[in-house]
Amino acid sequence: MSGLLCKDFSDIKAISTALEKKAAAFDSPEYHLKLLLDDPGRFGQFSKKIDGFFMDFSRQRLDWEALNSLYRLAEQTGAHNKFVGMTRGETVNTTENRAALHTAARGTGPCDLNINGLDVHAAMDKVRHEIAEFCQDVHSGTVTGADGRPFTRAVVVGIGGSYLGCEFVYHAMGAKITPVISLDFMPNVDIDEFYRTVAGIEPETTLWIVISKSFTTTETMANLTQVTAWLNDFGLLPEQHIVTVTAKASPGDQAGAPVLKSFHMFDFIGGRYSVSSAVGGLPLSLAYGFDAYDCFLSGCRAMDDHVLDSKQSLAMTAACISVWNSLFLKYPAQGIIPYSTRLSKLPAHIQQLYMESIGKSAGADGSFLSGPAGAIIFGEPGTNAQHSFFQLAHQGPGFPMDFIGVIQPGFTGQQALSKGVTNHQELWANLLAQTRALALGRDHEDPARRFSGNRPSSLIVIDDLSPERIGMLLAFYEARTVLEGFILGVNPFDQFGVELGKTMAGDVRRQMAKKNRNSEFQLSCADPVQDFFVKALFKSETQ
Amino acid sequence: MSGLLCKDFSDIKAISTALEKKAAAFDSPEYHLKLLLDDPGRFGQFSKKIDGFFMDFSRQRLDWEALNSLYRLAEQTGAHNKFVGMTRGETVNTTENRAALHTAARGTGPCDLNINGLDVHAAMDKVRHEIAEFCQDVHSGTVTGADGRPFTRAVVVGIGGSYLGCEFVYHAMGAKITPVISLDFMPNVDIDEFYRTVAGIEPETTLWIVISKSFTTTETMANLTQVTAWLNDFGLLPEQHIVTVTAKASPGDQAGAPVLKSFHMFDFIGGRYSVSSAVGGLPLSLAYGFDAYDCFLSGCRAMDDHVLDSKQSLAMTAACISVWNSLFLKYPAQGIIPYSTRLSKLPAHIQQLYMESIGKSAGADGSFLSGPAGAIIFGEPGTNAQHSFFQLAHQGPGFPMDFIGVIQPGFTGQQALSKGVTNHQELWANLLAQTRALALGRDHEDPARRFSGNRPSSLIVIDDLSPERIGMLLAFYEARTVLEGFILGVNPFDQFGVELGKTMAGDVRRQMAKKNRNSEFQLSCADPVQDFFVKALFKSETQ
Repeated sequence: MSGLLCKDFSDIKAISTALEKKAAAFDSPEYHLKLLLDDPGRFGQFSKKIDGFFMDFSRQRLDWEALNSLYRLAEQTGAHNKFVGMTRGETVNTTENRAALHTAARGTGPCDLNINGLDVHAAMDKVRHEIAEFCQDVHSGTVTGADGRPFTRAVVVGIGGSYLGCEFVYHAMGAKITPVISLDFMPNVDIDEFYRTVAGIEPETTLWIVISKSFTTTETMANLTQVTAWLNDFGLLPEQHIVTVTAKASPGDQAGAPVLKSFHMFDFIGGRYSVSSAVGGLPLSLAYGFDAYDCFLSGCRAMDDHVLDSKQSLAMTAACISVWNSLFLKYPAQGIIPYSTRLSKLPAHIQQLYMESIGKSAGADGSFLSGPAGAIIFGEPGTNAQHSFFQLAHQGPGFPMDFIGVIQPGFTGQQALSKGVTNHQELWANLLAQTRALALGRDHEDPARRFSGNRPSSLIVIDDLSPERIGMLLAFYEARTVLEGFILGVNPFDQFGVELGKTMAGDVRRQMAKKNRNSEFQLSCADPVQDFFVKALFKSETQ
Repeated sequence: MSGLLCKDFSDIKAISTALEKKAAAFDSPEYHLKLLLDDPGRFGQFSKKIDGFFMDFSRQRLDWEALNSLYRLAEQTGAHNKFVGMTRGETVNTTENRAALHTAARGTGPCDLNINGLDVHAAMDKVRHEIAEFCQDVHSGTVTGADGRPFTRAVVVGIGGSYLGCEFVYHAMGAKITPVISLDFMPNVDIDEFYRTVAGIEPETTLWIVISKSFTTTETMANLTQVTAWLNDFGLLPEQHIVTVTAKASPGDQAGAPVLKSFHMFDFIGGRYSVSSAVGGLPLSLAYGFDAYDCFLSGCRAMDDHVLDSKQSLAMTAACISVWNSLFLKYPAQGIIPYSTRLSKLPAHIQQLYMESIGKSAGADGSFLSGPAGAIIFGEPGTNAQHSFFQLAHQGPGFPMDFIGVIQPGFTGQQALSKGVTNHQELWANLLAQTRALALGRDHEDPARRFSGNRPSSLIVIDDLSPERIGMLLAFYEARTVLEGFILGVNPFDQFGVELGKTMAGDVRRQMAKKNRNSEFQLSCADPVQDFFVKALFKSETQ
């Protein structure tokens, strides 16, 4: 079995051809959403829920025939079976010959899960136990900064998958829990950002969490160099103020000396899927306590179990809809609009998760795809987005969106009323209005006041911003992404597309390093643009 | 004269047809960027600069013939003349029958500029003078909070154009100047966000800046209600702690009582173009001093003057390239990637500026366009983006990007070296590598390791993050957007597409308000989805 974008699978092609015809039919006026939504039963039929998590997809440009074809297509590609296999340790990361076991980080999967002789659950338990113990020691003041005062702040030094998911969960969880230790994130190799961050912190009460699986990530190592030099300026030692999250036996796996402690990550969990492992687990437990992290994991597990149990799960349905929208209805982008500022970092996380997983030209089987896969993901919180790019969403070239609502806000006190409603109600009034307006549109003789409508969206609703629900939201998008990769036939776990830029950056860096060592060195970069700007940089430094 | 997307202008159509043919030719292998870039003179020819601002567009999929046709097309649409007319107070906002004079906010345009009897420059000078005086009074401690201590913090309450641009400039300027008064931004009508913000501030030393032209913006008014109630809890009065930026005679124009002071904005400056007016000017002057704001304005003016002086300015060239990429090469999105974390809020500002200005179905002349206009704008800082969505940018469906570089970082001290280079050099090595890798690609027999290349980008470089250069960057994107609107024939100053959602939100709000007043009220919303979730909200409140 293989995927939709791979070339020679006739069963898949037959369904695909039928779906292409169906998509063409959806261009005609009788398939306009305003007509589809005339059916009073549509909301009941085109929505699904599990405890605490609801998805309404009645405003997607879909009918039963299309949806059932998409489910059949998914079945033909073996997507659900591959997902089950993934949680069992099968080598689903084919191009890198690895398992993909982020689900095991929250205890999903069979009890006996062995990868190359490693008892996976035991290894995960061990790391979680170490996190719990360390956080307990930090919170109780047993482990302190160099001058004996407790840690009050931690800076996460890590880029891409080493911070995006954690940053999302950190901000989301803050709606209901006040952090014991507040977190900053330092992803970029930007000296202004380094000094902005350290300007606001007290060296003696700050813990640095350096996250890199290989412990060779250029940006992270460059920032570690700055951190070490900066600690040194205050007479502080790395073994007092730095912990690492890294692979066993990496250059950063050096608990005791020169760092305080190391927590392990594993090669069968990729960066963008690592939030529920120590990558998110250590910072989140330091911030909110291990119990909150544990509740978050149980939310992830609840979603995983649902996806494993049902071939038409929430995540599978969302994956099918995403395939339908990108590949058949030809939408090049998807919006993620959480109506909660606490979820404002979710779009950036899903952007990485999805675009790095699906944005491929090669199939998981090593073939060229029939065309490049993937769509652009972007988003801002609502209602902010309404006052920003929703003009285009309503009257420009439309694109599908996931609207995300939260029933209960974190704040539970009395709210002043404005126009007769609370702020939270106002937020919801807007959310419910936007999805309707996008779908229905409005006729008007003045072109500037006409709304063509027929712009699809899903509405994803979680009960609250408790750690469990945030875990469900995370695991939902992880599963959706993986399943879409399986349906399309791409490997959602590799990222060879980032290699060429890294190689070429090395070429420029070597020129710069030579010039740093010897100011007489004649720069000779690979092209005139590089030459021009590298010279401009050196010139500005000597001014 | 009219625009490209309007239907019946034969001169424009002739050039447009030629450009369509040209775009088709660009699909063939001989137009691959790797071949175009073989020309050693290309960088010199396809780049432009003015003092402190450089744009390299040699890696756009363009040749001279295409570029010259685009310039001719712009000429035929009268875009440059309309821009000149705009700065002279002509009614370029045709659908709302108004001038668009954001350029006057920085003194651009003829000395005698009258709109409906108002001497525009005198009115602008007056507001700037009031800002200078007020900030002087606040910084010197003449104007203080209720208990006589100086203000140390200000919260901007405003949404969309009332905060996005200011937020970008605030973060950018911080690279070189430490704020006297630090700013927070409260756009969303989100009660969790309100309490997150107030949790971190001291009521007695905080000034609230409420920004709304009409002073009826729902979100802003709802937040003002919360702020007033919250101040009241601390025994503080609005006239001691709230200032407004609003239109003359709006409900918020009430200096003395009930607010401390009001600063005027004008109906000939739209929200998304208002950064250089009091909307940005007051918060930025409070933060960094009036002089810094004034330098920022002079940077805006320098760019305005350049655009006025040249029919093939940086902004006109960028507008032509944007038209070429969206309309002829059919790219649905554009990335904005600043290689500086200090510029991390730039993409969100340009996203609003561009998508709200260009995302239209109607022409400025009141006609229906031949198709909806606009592209999606999104972005994150580099190198962060490399570790997020650049996998798709390299191997998925490509899209054009603006890479933005800054020659001198704000930090000017000694930096520790990593791999022989400073962090700032590492940032640049990556920037210069990415644009090259995207353009050239790399052949490889393994599909997963093959890069098709031919992915276009521009490189925009500013000398530093001084207020002047930030002003140039802002005015560049403003002018680019306006010119693109003029070329396409859409009105870049209206936003009728946001109206329908507002109307429908009112319908939901009224149901909620009735239910708040009378718990026996039987909800009856416009559709089953609204009914279901409004009931769920009320149910959750009574639990």
